[in-house]
Amino acid sequence: MSNSYVLVINSGSSSLKFAIIDSVSGDAIVSGLGECFGLPEATISWKFNGEKTQEAIEAQGNHHQHAIKRLVTLIESLGFTNDIVAVGHRVVHGGEKFTSTVKIDNQVLTEIERLSDLAPLHNPAGAKGIEAAIEAFPNLPQFAVFDTAFHQTMPTKAFTAGIDKDLYTEYGIRRYGFHGTSHFYVSRQAAKILDIPVEKSGFITVHLGNGASVCAVQNGKSKDTSMGFTPLAGLMMGTRSGDIDPGILEFLMKKGWSQDQVFDMLNKKSGFLGVSHITSDARGILEAMEQGHEDAKLAFEVFTYRVAKYIASYLIPLTSLDAIVFTGGIGENSNIIREEILNNLSLLGFVVDSEGNDKARFGNEGIIARSELLGAVAMVVPTNEELVIARECVERL
Amino acid sequence: MSNSYVLVINSGSSSLKFAIIDSVSGDAIVSGLGECFGLPEATISWKFNGEKTQEAIEAQGNHHQHAIKRLVTLIESLGFTNDIVAVGHRVVHGGEKFTSTVKIDNQVLTEIERLSDLAPLHNPAGAKGIEAAIEAFPNLPQFAVFDTAFHQTMPTKAFTAGIDKDLYTEYGIRRYGFHGTSHFYVSRQAAKILDIPVEKSGFITVHLGNGASVCAVQNGKSKDTSMGFTPLAGLMMGTRSGDIDPGILEFLMKKGWSQDQVFDMLNKKSGFLGVSHITSDARGILEAMEQGHEDAKLAFEVFTYRVAKYIASYLIPLTSLDAIVFTGGIGENSNIIREEILNNLSLLGFVVDSEGNDKARFGNEGIIARSELLGAVAMVVPTNEELVIARECVERL
Repeated sequence: MSNSYVLVINSGSSSLKFAIIDSVSGDAIVSGLGECFGLPEATISWKFNGEKTQEAIEAQGNHHQHAIKRLVTLIESLGFTNDIVAVGHRVVHGGEKFTSTVKIDNQVLTEIERLSDLAPLHNPAGAKGIEAAIEAFPNLPQFAVFDTAFHQTMPTKAFTAGIDKDLYTEYGIRRYGFHGTSHFYVSRQAAKILDIPVEKSGFITVHLGNGASVCAVQNGKSKDTSMGFTPLAGLMMGTRSGDIDPGILEFLMKKGWSQDQVFDMLNKKSGFLGVSHITSDARGILEAMEQGHEDAKLAFEVFTYRVAKYIASYLIPLTSLDAIVFTGGIGENSNIIREEILNNLSLLGFVVDSEGNDKARFGNEGIIARSELLGAVAMVVPTNEELVIARECVERL
Repeated sequence: MSNSYVLVINSGSSSLKFAIIDSVSGDAIVSGLGECFGLPEATISWKFNGEKTQEAIEAQGNHHQHAIKRLVTLIESLGFTNDIVAVGHRVVHGGEKFTSTVKIDNQVLTEIERLSDLAPLHNPAGAKGIEAAIEAFPNLPQFAVFDTAFHQTMPTKAFTAGIDKDLYTEYGIRRYGFHGTSHFYVSRQAAKILDIPVEKSGFITVHLGNGASVCAVQNGKSKDTSMGFTPLAGLMMGTRSGDIDPGILEFLMKKGWSQDQVFDMLNKKSGFLGVSHITSDARGILEAMEQGHEDAKLAFEVFTYRVAKYIASYLIPLTSLDAIVFTGGIGENSNIIREEILNNLSLLGFVVDSEGNDKARFGNEGIIARSELLGAVAMVVPTNEELVIARECVERL
């Protein structure tokens, strides 16, 4: 019997992440990255059997295409050609059209391109990767797995923007949410770990990475999430402001700031970086804080305080709570940030299990706090978005 | 012994509300309104002993000045001249400078004008009213009571905007919060009603009117509040969006909307009005909902859901909770809206006391729900901002 490997592709505007995932074990057999697309120094690199290889990509032409063509010969040379059963594409925006993973055909591709209006940075790049992959792997079924699909179960009251309703009918302005595969995965894993049926579970999943979002998952379904029409909404992040008084934008524009300046500041010069003026990276913030840097401490406090407020607010969409589930780069690794978030939750009865919290790092899952008041725990579950994509494909073969 | 009456003035850009308040009983002896300032049809009207009088205001010149001059003769003709001990001005923005009520002198007036940068619609009008009142009542002490002052006790992590920190030092961009006198008043009243010392109390005060905000009040001090740098932030309101994904603003501007169009929509065509396309008034929303209007029902659901999420999130800044306190036009009168908010809070143990909730209307205070889980109640406390202003003045005489 041959293996059930899936080639997972995450195509960005100037990069392309890829991995060959064993859809049974979840192992990444090969994982790699094409980067600096559009520049002469474009490269592709991958890891296989613990060894890393890097190559230049031909400078001329379409780098997405070059990179994916290289994948064909790479897969051949590693002897996996017959093991790969599908190609799974991560696509950022599925709008209201795509509520789950779909097999890609011309119509689907056209629709993904059409949704570029909602995700101008991401969907065109995703479409580019899909086109190149169809050309390179014409005999493999290809699937699109959407970052937004999991959140399509949100009730209308949770996704409505609170503004002129014509903007929803005319432009599709509403909350979509992102990080869907991650919130989906960790809510399932958490149910498994706690040995409760997904259909009778309540989770608040907290994905904290360079991007960050919180999700209320009741009986396996997303009921609300902190990212919105765009990934700028919700929590404060590495360089993004998250929620902000729109009156601040009006004030700055009246002071003469251009639109580009305002949105560049909100997207790239805010968050950890903006508050601290040191770094967008949580580890750097923690180090600076230890060295007594006041603004790093403030960035840490604002971030954790806001995460805690979002967690508490997601008791509203839920009808039961089993666990708060931390995941993502920060959520899986920073016991210090998790501890501060949980200390903020003390009025909800959460008491940190210091030993559990210290152990649940670098890929280890575990219980990190308990609330007798709510009859719930807090836990860490490492996310695995690529495994979700691989499994979604295999399920649909 | 003469009475301790205070003339309370709330001066807007095209209107001026006034009242003569008995600072002991809290009764409004006279209350009135100058309106349509700047237009030929400018009028002044007042109520005294249940009788209403209306007069035209001289069309030429400064209408704020005309209206306040008329107050001098009105007060004389009613025979209250010797009973009035102070003039109290409601001023919207006190910035970081004014953390409590101050006696007005030239320096204070200059500072209020200087803060017009932060409140361009309100502070210039406030200053205009103060100038006219000083001229009209040269022998009375005049005080400024700020809408922002009560919130100046918020910790830095609660007032920091999560954006480039230079914008705080350069422009003063941070959360200020508004409705301060109302949150102050109802938190004191709630402590009195529950017979607990203010210094050991925890309240979430929910002021729901045409403008709306929530405040976490611990031991008598504001710890966080939903309005921000401007009154546009936080809850969805009559015509205001409240919190919104800033990416929506970027999207609209890229579609060709002008800044004025965008912020006009967020301030005047959003909220109840925007979601329902019927009315900005909660009563109208409830009526339309009863008649089966779907979008009115959605507006009701979005509003109540968001209020509930804010309430839950304010368990984070608190260290104890005694009560959720509803106030303001909607909070005091709409048992239906309160009930829906409290039903949203069921995971926090709140169970509505239907009889109590139905009774607490039209000026009646009372307990409307209880949570055994949190050991807290929900209650209604009618607000009285004018009484706060009057008492603040008298205390400082």
